[in-house]
Amino acid sequence: MSNASQFEINNKEFTKSFTQGSLPLPPSKKVAVLTCMDARLDPAKVLGIEIGEAHVIRNAGGRSIDGLRSLIISQRLLGTREIVLIHHTDCGMLTFKDDDLRNQLVKETGELVDHWSFLPFDDLKKSVIDDLEFLKKHPLILDVPITGYVYHVEDGSIEKVY
Amino acid sequence: MSNASQFEINNKEFTKSFTQGSLPLPPSKKVAVLTCMDARLDPAKVLGIEIGEAHVIRNAGGRSIDGLRSLIISQRLLGTREIVLIHHTDCGMLTFKDDDLRNQLVKETGELVDHWSFLPFDDLKKSVIDDLEFLKKHPLILDVPITGYVYHVEDGSIEKVY
Repeated sequence: MSNASQFEINNKEFTKSFTQGSLPLPPSKKVAVLTCMDARLDPAKVLGIEIGEAHVIRNAGGRSIDGLRSLIISQRLLGTREIVLIHHTDCGMLTFKDDDLRNQLVKETGELVDHWSFLPFDDLKKSVIDDLEFLKKHPLILDVPITGYVYHVEDGSIEKVY
Repeated sequence: MSNASQFEINNKEFTKSFTQGSLPLPPSKKVAVLTCMDARLDPAKVLGIEIGEAHVIRNAGGRSIDGLRSLIISQRLLGTREIVLIHHTDCGMLTFKDDDLRNQLVKETGELVDHWSFLPFDDLKKSVIDDLEFLKKHPLILDVPITGYVYHVEDGSIEKVY
């Protein structure tokens, strides 16, 4: 069975216990969380986020430049006034260099991707600091509290790094 | 109290019940879910995803072009072989036009953003089909099953549209 088919079955169960009703579009806690797509990181559980409270933006690595469009919309149109940035241990972004993936893609697809960047990093805490500084200095991002963490996939804890 | 401080307190509780131990980096169900950052949509709950099973990529609207880097990494480096795409009712992307946000940003920041696109849409089901076709035709995305849904924030159900 495809995952999609299983998700449809799971969703039927979910709707039976759906009690939240209609909630407002803007996040009630006025916060946007930016983190990685990693399968071992469930932001709602890790941070205790309830439905309707927070925007959750996720991409490979939890990189700021890739979340920029979403954060601008989150702040300017939907009123969030705080950003929480979380990268994590054992991240896939620590396992490759741009050239590795570019070469793989050329080999596997024949496409020219010489000028693509996939935003890997080789220092976890520095990646949090870099991405946080990127947001703090960006002219389209509001001057709001931004806090940066490392999530430890081994024990579930978040460690503040900035 | 900032949301970050509250998240730190919530996380201390979470770590007490952390039992998953160390899980492998690649998602066990080999699936990537691409959906919106909306605060009312918790993909793990809506789809019944357990920890370690799926990549979850989220951005404003759940747009494919914005998730492309993450999907390439998900497939080529971490072995996912299915994509589930979910947009949702009452989405913020249905509420504005690019020119509106561009004008607002120029007024609020003085920055020139004439050539930015924030990827709004005006037809929900068509946005799912467009984004699904974008992935199906993209030369860097593998030929894998891709299923598209609309999530109904009013009752918690997912509706297959493609």
